[in-house]
Amino acid sequence: MSLEANNPNRETWLDIPENTDFPIQNIPFGVFLTRDDIITIGTRIGDYAIDLGALHQLGYFEGIPLTDDIFLQDTLNDFIADGRKTWRSVRNRIAEIFDKNNDKLKNNEKDRKTILFTLDEIEMQMPVEVGDYTDFYSSKEHATNIGKMFRDPDNALLPNWMHIPVGYHGRSSSIVPSGIPLHRPQGQKLPKGADTPIFGPSRRLDFELEMAFITTAANHLGEPIKIEEAEEYIFGMVIFNDWSARDIQKWEYVPLGPFLGKSFGSSISPWIVTLDALEPFKAEGPKPEKELLPYLRTTGKKSYDINLQVALKPENSEETVISNSNFKYMYWNMCQQLAHHTVNGCPVNSGDMMASGTISGPTPDSYGSMLELSWGGTKPLKLNNGEERKFIEDNDTVIMRAHCQNHEVRIGFGEVSSKILPVFKD
Amino acid sequence: MSLEANNPNRETWLDIPENTDFPIQNIPFGVFLTRDDIITIGTRIGDYAIDLGALHQLGYFEGIPLTDDIFLQDTLNDFIADGRKTWRSVRNRIAEIFDKNNDKLKNNEKDRKTILFTLDEIEMQMPVEVGDYTDFYSSKEHATNIGKMFRDPDNALLPNWMHIPVGYHGRSSSIVPSGIPLHRPQGQKLPKGADTPIFGPSRRLDFELEMAFITTAANHLGEPIKIEEAEEYIFGMVIFNDWSARDIQKWEYVPLGPFLGKSFGSSISPWIVTLDALEPFKAEGPKPEKELLPYLRTTGKKSYDINLQVALKPENSEETVISNSNFKYMYWNMCQQLAHHTVNGCPVNSGDMMASGTISGPTPDSYGSMLELSWGGTKPLKLNNGEERKFIEDNDTVIMRAHCQNHEVRIGFGEVSSKILPVFKD
Repeated sequence: MSLEANNPNRETWLDIPENTDFPIQNIPFGVFLTRDDIITIGTRIGDYAIDLGALHQLGYFEGIPLTDDIFLQDTLNDFIADGRKTWRSVRNRIAEIFDKNNDKLKNNEKDRKTILFTLDEIEMQMPVEVGDYTDFYSSKEHATNIGKMFRDPDNALLPNWMHIPVGYHGRSSSIVPSGIPLHRPQGQKLPKGADTPIFGPSRRLDFELEMAFITTAANHLGEPIKIEEAEEYIFGMVIFNDWSARDIQKWEYVPLGPFLGKSFGSSISPWIVTLDALEPFKAEGPKPEKELLPYLRTTGKKSYDINLQVALKPENSEETVISNSNFKYMYWNMCQQLAHHTVNGCPVNSGDMMASGTISGPTPDSYGSMLELSWGGTKPLKLNNGEERKFIEDNDTVIMRAHCQNHEVRIGFGEVSSKILPVFKD
Repeated sequence: MSLEANNPNRETWLDIPENTDFPIQNIPFGVFLTRDDIITIGTRIGDYAIDLGALHQLGYFEGIPLTDDIFLQDTLNDFIADGRKTWRSVRNRIAEIFDKNNDKLKNNEKDRKTILFTLDEIEMQMPVEVGDYTDFYSSKEHATNIGKMFRDPDNALLPNWMHIPVGYHGRSSSIVPSGIPLHRPQGQKLPKGADTPIFGPSRRLDFELEMAFITTAANHLGEPIKIEEAEEYIFGMVIFNDWSARDIQKWEYVPLGPFLGKSFGSSISPWIVTLDALEPFKAEGPKPEKELLPYLRTTGKKSYDINLQVALKPENSEETVISNSNFKYMYWNMCQQLAHHTVNGCPVNSGDMMASGTISGPTPDSYGSMLELSWGGTKPLKLNNGEERKFIEDNDTVIMRAHCQNHEVRIGFGEVSSKILPVFKD
């Protein structure tokens, strides 16, 4: 099936802002609460949210094999499980419906009123129920920076790093959409020079700039996914802020990995941008520096040119952009991650989420965490309001943005914005 | 509400085997496929499976506030979310219905035929949809054994171990009930002395003897569970075989913990034995050897005296019992695990599963993994059929059993039995 929805020349009859992240070529998928307190599946064009449940009930998806309630659900899991052919048909149809040369909905005021919402009328929800969440560690620059700071500056990368897209299982229950504030976590920390831990609020609270992909039902228990087929099972991507409490993490993580230093919360941008919409922005990633085992070898463009930005906004103050990076810096690509994840037969289901790991670029202004930007707290960042930051303080908001841009079209993710509240009190 | 269902003097009108794991005092909960290909929630008394969906439809739970379809579901998640008062009411009522002094169902042949199944008529399913699965590392003997083998024999326990119930996130999608075979996983391994990994089948395939608890919806994002309240949120327990590929695990696990060495499969016993049924077997665990931070301090009996056994059965051969252990050896108890898990505000949902970590006792015949029993492969185990084993071979079946016994009653878990098949071929 063709990617008609990607036609860069198509315009919409909707009134949308110039330079929006959500032109008619994007057509992402999300879940929102409407003004009538109904949860529905929808898409977004410009600053309009579009109720796909209502569109379907009104017959606009006629001819596409969809169950009646596919969009009247709390999550996208079932729609994603329907597979790529269905996603493409629906995305192509949405492009047609909102094409400026199509009068059907444009001239039907009653239908328009049922289907269209302005952004202030809706509340975005988690787009999927995440069955399992995996976090990779696929930026060479990030892994090197961390290795230099915490282990041996001369052997910053561990021996397995060049051979394996290193990853670990994360906590799905604490993944929340943009806008949900999080309390500063408490936990055990080992003060410098002490041999007994103390309990208290994290004092080294950090973000991690990541992108995550969402899978469809991919394989059965025991059956690996071949790397050539991996892309078929990826529905789309979101921005992922993997909040981290460095002091808690440092004390707990040996030998079994990060746990409470991460599981207090992760924040995502609420619109899933499909891999189809990102097609024009395919890019080459770095060349492997060591020969890979056959199950991890890819050819052609398997990365994406996605511009990334992190801003920090203190309470009642303007924001400061503190990092500019790009997804294409990632050493390991999503196909390698998915092939590796399943090479042992681990089943991957519809709605599973796999994050990239912190995306750090080659220069200090492209690092993807406060830990790296302030180099372990030794080089505080200057903010536009005159303040300094080594780590995240109470009532700070961290905003991450992502978009692709070529000479024809801009495809964006919007943002994930989340505020850190003081420690929870009973 | 009283624990009437635990009355050790009650007898049932059902014909049940002597010394069964499932006397009328047990009343576990599970999910099964019936002879009519319907999935239902049920319990077990002796060798009868009892259809709770049918019992409810026939009015036997009258007076207990339950939704109509609470037992007509594919998982126990919603029933568990109803909370302890409901679980107790239902368990007490089931005890009444099958009490030998109650003629109502006993004398109703038609109802009996609808409700009762023999074990060969049903197929056990996963009892819950596991939202998140956590694996702890709470046996001091196991952590010490592993530390001796892989790190420093003189400093086997890492500095954080005595202060933290160390845990990590595991993969929920590959947890399967007893009876489902697993393929030997493949993956990357580093041969001795090499600096480049090879790809192939795991040659150090192992089990881990664990118990897991299943939670109800416990807290909201940001809100820790107090240790005094932790027990309230534990529904029950199962036996948990945390299959492990030691060669894959060894190469991949630094610095972020176990991943593909574990995620190819975990096996559980299918009947959840409630914490209520285990009440008579409460026991003291080991005394903390270091002073604990206040949020981890417990008083009274917080462990359980559960006898554990592991048997290995080669294809077409008798089984050999290779380990006898007990859950009460665990250094950290379930209340400490749950309080720790949530102290940072991590939300715990109905159906989440938390495994203990390998349960090793003080003596070599009570170790909970092949890695320890054969001491890294240096002391092969002799089997009854004359063969030897360092690790698990193709077509071996590993069977784990668990039960509690006092002078009045035996409460058991049945078994988790799973066979290892050769590597998966397309």
